[in-house]
Amino acid sequence: MTEFDDALRLTPTDTPGAYGVDLSGDWTIGGGINGGLLLSVMGNALSQTLGAGGHPDPFSISAYYLAPGRPGPATVETALVRKGGSVSVGSASLVQRDADGNPVEAIRVLATFTDLDRTPTDSDVRLTPPELPPLDKCVRASDAPPAVLKEADLLQRSDLRLDPATAMWAVGQPSGRGMIQGWWRFADGREADALSLLFACDVLPPVSMDLGKLGWAPTIEFTVHVLGKPASGWLRIKHFTEHVAAGHFVEDCEVWDSEDRLVAQSRQLARLPRPLG
Amino acid sequence: MTEFDDALRLTPTDTPGAYGVDLSGDWTIGGGINGGLLLSVMGNALSQTLGAGGHPDPFSISAYYLAPGRPGPATVETALVRKGGSVSVGSASLVQRDADGNPVEAIRVLATFTDLDRTPTDSDVRLTPPELPPLDKCVRASDAPPAVLKEADLLQRSDLRLDPATAMWAVGQPSGRGMIQGWWRFADGREADALSLLFACDVLPPVSMDLGKLGWAPTIEFTVHVLGKPASGWLRIKHFTEHVAAGHFVEDCEVWDSEDRLVAQSRQLARLPRPLG
Repeated sequence: MTEFDDALRLTPTDTPGAYGVDLSGDWTIGGGINGGLLLSVMGNALSQTLGAGGHPDPFSISAYYLAPGRPGPATVETALVRKGGSVSVGSASLVQRDADGNPVEAIRVLATFTDLDRTPTDSDVRLTPPELPPLDKCVRASDAPPAVLKEADLLQRSDLRLDPATAMWAVGQPSGRGMIQGWWRFADGREADALSLLFACDVLPPVSMDLGKLGWAPTIEFTVHVLGKPASGWLRIKHFTEHVAAGHFVEDCEVWDSEDRLVAQSRQLARLPRPLG
Repeated sequence: MTEFDDALRLTPTDTPGAYGVDLSGDWTIGGGINGGLLLSVMGNALSQTLGAGGHPDPFSISAYYLAPGRPGPATVETALVRKGGSVSVGSASLVQRDADGNPVEAIRVLATFTDLDRTPTDSDVRLTPPELPPLDKCVRASDAPPAVLKEADLLQRSDLRLDPATAMWAVGQPSGRGMIQGWWRFADGREADALSLLFACDVLPPVSMDLGKLGWAPTIEFTVHVLGKPASGWLRIKHFTEHVAAGHFVEDCEVWDSEDRLVAQSRQLARLPRPLG
């Protein structure tokens, strides 16, 4: 079993639509579970619930983050909201227990699922794939300083190669453009599928880094549209922001597959990191 | 009372967090209630529920559309999901009764509310306001053919002036660009506020019209970010699409106020209209 499939493994419970999951410390960033990994867990649970009606694939999923996800056991409760002919809508919630045994909801989700093998394949995309240097000219995230890697177990699950022109913030020279892009695949060679695109849309460092705002950028809202199943091979991912306002920033993400198809697009509203120290 | 406030008027019920509303036929398009008006109704109910905790203004709201809203009575059920220091998260659902008295849920929402008077005002926006011809050189939506106006009571609630270069689809000459922009305000002169931005983000015709795809484009998912309260006066609204895929299109929207501030940004995933006839 691959690392990603292991992280997403669900166990049945006595409650219909509710699943147990053991959140692994292998996917943390700064002590909390990565938001894209949490979203993939929710997507996997919804795929069980909505897949029974013929709609196993995420099409649109919107997440509201409530509290950091912590390593340890959690329960994902899902519900079918509406079953339609070509899509179904569902809701999901991930709950953990605090030290006193009180429930803490970490994330709440609404989603539309479909069967991506049955959707029309015609497309008219005016966006173009990111232009990236070849893999061997990019910066490996695994070459980050040990202090960074220690805070980001997540990085070791990915083979992430950043375009050096968009990674200068890592050496104290943010470009100010608010754009980070690179090549990505799972470190253990697992091929990407529809579900892992939910993870891919949140796997790059926050673009606030390239604005010179270092630190954790808590997500308020995160919506992913999955436009197709990716072809095998490396994905190219581009994160960018076009506005910072009201103490927050909007981060757009595009994921392109090896056949130059835009396979996922996402937008998140996140809080700007507060100045350090 | 203005037309918009009248449409949003809530009546208390015996259930905490639940409100009655009478959906007016004055806000229909093709027989269904406009999605942005429905979202404003949900926003108004959430403003009651979350405003009690000091967070009366929409900041991010994500709607999943389940069935067309119909003129007549409806109930909006809201719940506080999490109360925080600077934001609160809530959920809402709008339910009507069918001819047999069975409940039909029309829309389900997750949202983060805040107090927009207390958010930081610094901004760094790389987008620029749409360039529009002066008001008297634009096309009044109220000059549409009577057959169109008959199907769109909604248009009479707005004073909408479209940039002629982006309105040629109305005379059978879509540009193919997938962009529609114009000036907007309420027809009765009511000033826009944070809540009415939820309506403004869905008030222009779908951009699929400018792709030559006529007909109703049902919304799957619609997320609005409200970045600030608008200054008084006309708003400028721009709708555009950058991709059509999987039988659907993504519609982006920007709303700019009279002081050149980006006050709202939205994205929706909608189904392409099926060919007519």
